[in-house]
Amino acid sequence: MRSFVIFRLSFLAILLPVATCFLPSYAQETTCSTSLLSSTSSSSVDMSMKWFQHELTITAPSRGCHLITADVQKAISKDLGQIKIGMCNLFIQHTSASLTVNENADPDVRRDMEVALNKIVPASWNHDGTFKHTMEGDDDMPGHVKTSLMGPSLNLPIRNGRLALGTWQGIYLNEHRDQGGWGGGHSRNIIVTLQGQG
Amino acid sequence: MRSFVIFRLSFLAILLPVATCFLPSYAQETTCSTSLLSSTSSSSVDMSMKWFQHELTITAPSRGCHLITADVQKAISKDLGQIKIGMCNLFIQHTSASLTVNENADPDVRRDMEVALNKIVPASWNHDGTFKHTMEGDDDMPGHVKTSLMGPSLNLPIRNGRLALGTWQGIYLNEHRDQGGWGGGHSRNIIVTLQGQG
Amino acid sequence: MRSFVIFRLSFLAILLPVATCFLPSYAQETTCSTSLLSSTSSSSVDMSMKWFQHELTITAPSRGCHLITADVQKAISKDLGQIKIGMCNLFIQHTSASLTVNENADPDVRRDMEVALNKIVPASWNHDGTFKHTMEGDDDMPGHVKTSLMGPSLNLPIRNGRLALGTWQGIYLNEHRDQGGWGGGHSRNIIVTLQGQG
Repeated sequence: MRSFVIFRLSFLAILLPVATCFLPSYAQETTCSTSLLSSTSSSSVDMSMKWFQHELTITAPSRGCHLITADVQKAISKDLGQIKIGMCNLFIQHTSASLTVNENADPDVRRDMEVALNKIVPASWNHDGTFKHTMEGDDDMPGHVKTSLMGPSLNLPIRNGRLALGTWQGIYLNEHRDQGGWGGGHSRNIIVTLQGQG
Repeated sequence: MRSFVIFRLSFLAILLPVATCFLPSYAQETTCSTSLLSSTSSSSVDMSMKWFQHELTITAPSRGCHLITADVQKAISKDLGQIKIGMCNLFIQHTSASLTVNENADPDVRRDMEVALNKIVPASWNHDGTFKHTMEGDDDMPGHVKTSLMGPSLNLPIRNGRLALGTWQGIYLNEHRDQGGWGGGHSRNIIVTLQGQG
Repeated sequence: MRSFVIFRLSFLAILLPVATCFLPSYAQETTCSTSLLSSTSSSSVDMSMKWFQHELTITAPSRGCHLITADVQKAISKDLGQIKIGMCNLFIQHTSASLTVNENADPDVRRDMEVALNKIVPASWNHDGTFKHTMEGDDDMPGHVKTSLMGPSLNLPIRNGRLALGTWQGIYLNEHRDQGGWGGGHSRNIIVTLQGQG
């Protein structure tokens, strides 16, 4: 009975995403319109706040930018289905691999991202006196810089049981090392934390 | 009666941000002091965990960095007022537009940000053999790189019904395309997810 | 009695992180394995959703990248102990100082990060016509760019009462100004927001 009440409330949350306001344009800046997608408040009736946490271990086949949307979605599909509004955080527990969102269609974009990162943070900085932390190889200190530029933590909204990614958006794991560091390979741990209201 | 109890508890959460610790300086590193602003725990009495989700459609007048703090705040002002401690996530569902926080006063900062991004990821990389994904125009692959560097996802804390931005902080929408890609204009979707405790 | 029930449920959440799936390799892309670390759902029994918010004031001894993991952990250790699964957000309320995660061992990495940032966004852009916002000093506009590249907001997962940082990961405060701007020194406010389920 209780779960039915929760279900019915959740259902209302889907059916009632009424467009609540349409803001007028701002002078010369930006124009903006807004729709309320959903809104839930866990009062004494609906208390189905959910938390899930997973550890994904992903091994990239090579240095570079890799699309991991399918890996992530498979790992969390059961959890996602239980969340109407929520957030999903991906956190990579390393300092020479990073996470981002980028174009999911043309493989050239992944290739071009890797090339661009190598121009922004060139390996030559290991040899021209720029870097002092050079003992772990030419890919190490550039990998640390790239990781901080791209970021180790990625937050994606959840809407009606799905990651609210745009049509062309995919999740990237960027492997910045040739061999994963200290000879350990490219195996990378990602902590996936989901939270939301069902 | 119940809502009065919740209100009273929330009120206490405002009145009691007691400075709980003052940490001594660390040797040569950083000095640090801490205040507890608020703390709530939704036990059997206060269960007012709230979630809101909006879709903002923002159209930038041109390529470049645009201040959208007012757009965002208008869209979520009703929700914000219900949250004492919380988080607000802005997620732009595109791969050639990004979100960040930057200086909100001098328009030259917005102009200089755009110029800096064009120097860090120059359009010339479309013509010197750096990029292969060049068929969508000179602004496309650079836009993908800039988006990943700046990030599509922005997390802002909520405190006492307001975004806890610093005095000089504003929310930026960075439009990296000349025409929004594929001739579709600059219309960009942002999913705004708010959560917190009232 | 009630808190004992909650404790027992939380205990189960620790004891039962069953590996639920082992995904097969993907063709040429990435290989991935998944473990469910924990999963809790606040039903009518367990409603211990917790929120904490602190203000940290950290003063860096100089421009550059500084390890502040210990400062952060001391400030939030009592809160962390109450959270089984959660998220911790650090938000720096400034536009010329940023937060990231990077290598926590070799001080040369901190030094090299600062040097790399100065090459990616050189101070010379104040003098060659690139920047117009130059009146606040050579460190100001570069500081704004670096802050947006690195980001002012950092999200870290919480697992079993601890920040789920990797072995080599530390939290960095990057101070991009020589004197903190407008002569105000290097004192920086960080809003720390913790949320999770106990």
